[in-house]
Amino acid sequence: MNGAEAILTTARDAGIDVCFANPGTTEMALVAALDSIRGIRPVLGLFEGVCTGAADGFGRMAGRPAMTLLHLGPGLANGLANLHNARRAHTPLVNVVGDHTTWHLACDSPLTSDIAALAAAVGWVHTSTDVKAVGTDVARAFSAATAPPGNVATLIVPADLQGLPGAGPAPTPSPPAAPAPESSRVAAAVGVLRRGKSSALYLGGPACRRDALQHAARIADATGCRVFVETFPARMERGAGTPRIERFGYFPEQTTGLLDGIDHVVLVGAPDPVAMFGWAGAASRMLPEQVQAVALAGVGENVDGALAAVADAFPKPARIARIAAFDPPPMPSGALDAYTLAAAIAATLPEHAVVVDEGATSSVPLYPALESAAPHSWLTLTGGAIGQGLPCATGAAIACPDRRVVSFQADGSGLYTLQALWTQARESLDVTTVVCANRAYRILQIELHRAGLPDTGRAARGLTDLGRPNVDWVHLAAGMGVPGVRAEDTETLVRALEHAYAEPGPHLIEAVLA
Amino acid sequence: MNGAEAILTTARDAGIDVCFANPGTTEMALVAALDSIRGIRPVLGLFEGVCTGAADGFGRMAGRPAMTLLHLGPGLANGLANLHNARRAHTPLVNVVGDHTTWHLACDSPLTSDIAALAAAVGWVHTSTDVKAVGTDVARAFSAATAPPGNVATLIVPADLQGLPGAGPAPTPSPPAAPAPESSRVAAAVGVLRRGKSSALYLGGPACRRDALQHAARIADATGCRVFVETFPARMERGAGTPRIERFGYFPEQTTGLLDGIDHVVLVGAPDPVAMFGWAGAASRMLPEQVQAVALAGVGENVDGALAAVADAFPKPARIARIAAFDPPPMPSGALDAYTLAAAIAATLPEHAVVVDEGATSSVPLYPALESAAPHSWLTLTGGAIGQGLPCATGAAIACPDRRVVSFQADGSGLYTLQALWTQARESLDVTTVVCANRAYRILQIELHRAGLPDTGRAARGLTDLGRPNVDWVHLAAGMGVPGVRAEDTETLVRALEHAYAEPGPHLIEAVLA
Repeated sequence: MNGAEAILTTARDAGIDVCFANPGTTEMALVAALDSIRGIRPVLGLFEGVCTGAADGFGRMAGRPAMTLLHLGPGLANGLANLHNARRAHTPLVNVVGDHTTWHLACDSPLTSDIAALAAAVGWVHTSTDVKAVGTDVARAFSAATAPPGNVATLIVPADLQGLPGAGPAPTPSPPAAPAPESSRVAAAVGVLRRGKSSALYLGGPACRRDALQHAARIADATGCRVFVETFPARMERGAGTPRIERFGYFPEQTTGLLDGIDHVVLVGAPDPVAMFGWAGAASRMLPEQVQAVALAGVGENVDGALAAVADAFPKPARIARIAAFDPPPMPSGALDAYTLAAAIAATLPEHAVVVDEGATSSVPLYPALESAAPHSWLTLTGGAIGQGLPCATGAAIACPDRRVVSFQADGSGLYTLQALWTQARESLDVTTVVCANRAYRILQIELHRAGLPDTGRAARGLTDLGRPNVDWVHLAAGMGVPGVRAEDTETLVRALEHAYAEPGPHLIEAVLA
Repeated sequence: MNGAEAILTTARDAGIDVCFANPGTTEMALVAALDSIRGIRPVLGLFEGVCTGAADGFGRMAGRPAMTLLHLGPGLANGLANLHNARRAHTPLVNVVGDHTTWHLACDSPLTSDIAALAAAVGWVHTSTDVKAVGTDVARAFSAATAPPGNVATLIVPADLQGLPGAGPAPTPSPPAAPAPESSRVAAAVGVLRRGKSSALYLGGPACRRDALQHAARIADATGCRVFVETFPARMERGAGTPRIERFGYFPEQTTGLLDGIDHVVLVGAPDPVAMFGWAGAASRMLPEQVQAVALAGVGENVDGALAAVADAFPKPARIARIAAFDPPPMPSGALDAYTLAAAIAATLPEHAVVVDEGATSSVPLYPALESAAPHSWLTLTGGAIGQGLPCATGAAIACPDRRVVSFQADGSGLYTLQALWTQARESLDVTTVVCANRAYRILQIELHRAGLPDTGRAARGLTDLGRPNVDWVHLAAGMGVPGVRAEDTETLVRALEHAYAEPGPHLIEAVLA
C-alpha cells in the first residue's frame, strides 16, 4: 500500500466519505488512490474556496468531517477564507494538502511556499515526513478535527510520500465526548436564572441544536428568563416545533434596548459576546457593563447535559409554551424588498430545508420571518469572511441529499465564490439559490454613514456600489450550468421558488432589490 | 490630517496612482481618504485575487507599484495566490490591509486572525502602531516594494489609526538603482561565451526587457552562443524588432535535447533553472549535470549594464542577425486547435499589444507563433498559482491605456478569478480575453499519464475534466457585463478577434478546443 492509499484508507475507516477537491500535480497519487480505495466520493470544486466552504457546510450538517484535497500553498491560500469561517463555526474538517517531493523543496521552485504557516492560521497542522507514519498522521489529523468542539486540521503530505510503498492505515480512536462542565457552574446558573426576567440565557454553538434548545425553552418557561441566540450561529434548528428565541444584535446600539432590565446572562456554548468590529464610541463587549455574565458550559463542553441539569432544577412544565406553531407569514404580493423577500422564503419553505444565510443586510428580516415557517436548519456566516454561502450550501446538500437547501445569498458576497454553482450542477444538488441583488456592498454604505464619512465621492461610491455594470446572475448561473430566473416582483419570485422546489437539481433566482 | 490621509498622501507623492481595492468595515477611513486626497484612482475588484493580480499586471507594465486595499486577514488570504505570483515575478507592489481597532484585537472577534503571518509568506510586512508614524510606514513599504528587483510589501493599519488626527505624510527616497555585479563576473561570462556554440545565455527577469535582449542578441551574433529565456518570464519584449530567443522547457525531458552540445550556461537575471516539480526520475536542477552555470548578474542586479559590458568585449556587428522581421504566420483556416488558435492570435495581433499568457497547455504553440508577430509584451504565470491571467490583464490594461491587451486564458485557470471580467467592464478596458476551452485540467491528465497512474477512474476523470456540464463562457462574460462570442472554427475566431480589436472596451471569445 502506498502513502496515498494509506491516507485514504485511514480516512475512510474513520468515517470520512467525501472529499472536496481541487488537486494539482503534487496530489496525483492521492487522486489515483481515490479510485483504488473505494468509499470516498470525490467532488470537484473549480476554486479552492468552494472546496473548503463545502467541507464546512458538510461538517455542520453531517456532524463529522469531510476531507478537502488542495494543491500546495496557493491552493490552501485560496481556501483559507472559508477555513477561517469553519474555524469560527467549530466545524470538524480535514484538509490534505500536497507539497513538493521532499528532495525538491530546497531548490525553491516557483510553487514553493510556507504551507504550514498558512495552515497554522486556521488550526492544527502537521507535515508528514515518513511514509510509514502517514496513516498515523491522518488519524492524528482526524482526532484533532473531531476533538470537541470541532476544529480545522491540515495534513501536508509531500508528493513522494504519497507514492512510496510501505505505508499502512492506522486506526482512529473515536472522538472523545464533550466533557461536562463542573457542577458548581450548573448551580451558579440555576441561582442566576431563579432571578427570572432579569436574567437571560445566551446560546451559541452546540446550544443551538434541537435538544439544547428544548432544555433552554423549558428553563425559560419555568423561570421567565429571556433567551437569546448569538448573532451568527453555525447551525440552529428553527421553525415550527422549535422554541422562539431572540436573536442578538449586530451593531452595539441594537443590543442596548434589547437587554433592558437584564442584569445577569448565562452563557451556553458561547463566549461573552463581543462586537464584530471595534467601533468608535462602543466597547468590544456587547453586553452592557452592568450585566454580569456567568458561563454554564463552553463551546467544547457538554451543553446538552448542562442545560438539562439546569432545567431539572426547576419544575417540569406540562408543555413548553414558547414552541413555535406552524404559522408562516402570508404569501406576499407586490413590490420586492428584503421584507417581502423574507416573507416569500418563509411562506414557501419546504419542510426540513437547510437555509444557508449569507444574505448580509438583506437577511435582517429573514430571521423573524422564518420563526414559524416549516422546520429547518439555519446556517450563518460565523467568521465574517464573505463568500461562504454558495460553497456552504453545496456541502450541506451533499451531506443531506434528502433535504432541500435554500442558499440565501447577498450578491456582493456571492460573487466571491460563484464557482460553487458549477459543482451544484455537476452533482445535481437540490439547492435553490436566492440572490439578494441590491447591487451594492450595502453594509459598507451603512458603515460609511455610521462613521460620519462622506459617501458621495468617486471612491466611496465606486467601491461600495456593484452597478455600472449590473451583474447579471441569470447569465452567470447559465454559464455554470444552473437554470436561473430574475424576479423583480413578489409574484414572479414566489412562482420561481415553487418551481425550483418542485424540480430536482440546482436553481438560481436573482431577486432584484435595488 | 488623519492616518488614512497621510497614508495616501505619502503613497501618491511616491508615485502610486492606482489602488486596486476591495475594502471592508476596517478600511472605511481609507476609502474616504481616496476621495479627499486626489491623485489615486480607485479600482474595485469583486474578489481580492482580482485586486492583487491586477496590481501584479500593473507593476509589470508600469515598472512601479500599484497599491491594493484589502480587508483584514480573509481579504489578504483571498489575494495571496496572486501575491505569490507577484513575488515570483519580482513585481513592486504595496498592499494596505486594515486591521481591527487596536483596543478591539484582544477580544478575538470573529474576523480576527494573524494577518502578519499571512503577509510574511509573500514578502515584507509591517504593522502600524502609531498614527504619527503611518506616513513613514508607507514610505518604508514603498522602499521595500521598489528595492531591486521589486517585492511585495504589506502594511497593516489598524482602523483607529486610519481615523486618528495628528498624522503627516513622509517623503519617500527614490528606489536605489540595481547594483552592478562584480567585474570579475563579466570577465568570467566573457570567457565562457568565447567558447561559442557550446555556451549559452540563459535570460530571466529584467534580462527579458528590450535593451537586455538587444545586448544578448549582439553577444550571440558575435560568439555563436545559444540564447534561452526562462520558461515563465514576468515580462518579455517579443515580436518584430526583437531578437529570436529559444524558450526553455517545462518538463525535464524537454530540456535534455534542447541543450545538446552545450557545456556552459551564463545566467542573467535568473537563478540556475529548477524544475517546476520534483518529478520521479528527474533532478531539481533543469540543466544537465555536466553543464556548468556561471552567474553574470542576479535578478536584483544591473543586468543591462552587465550584458552591455559583456557585449562590448566582442566586436560590434553591423546589424544583429537574429532580430525578427514582421512575418506573422498566415491566417489559419479550418478546425480550431491550439495550433490554429496560436496562428490566429499571431496573425491578427495589434501592434504593441500586451499578451497575458495563462494558456497552460494550450499556449505551447503560442510562443513560437508570436516570434514574428507585431511587437508586443508577453507576460506569463511566474509563480504557478493559477487564476492570474484575467486579473493580470486587467492591471496591465490600467497601466497601458493606449495598448491592446490580449488575455490568452486557459479555461480551468480562468475560472479561478473570472470576476476580473467585471472590472474590465466597469473600467472600459481594451482587453480581449481568449478562453482556451479544452474543458479539462489538461496538464493534470498529462501528469497522471506521465506518472503511469490510471486515468479512467471516477476520481481521475472527475477531478481533471471540466465538462458535465460544460462551462459556458459567453454567458459568464455576459453576466459580468462583457460581450462574448463562441468560436468553434478558425474563421469565426478570426472574425471575432478582428471585431474585438476594432471596438473599444473588453471582449471575450470562447475558443472551443475540446
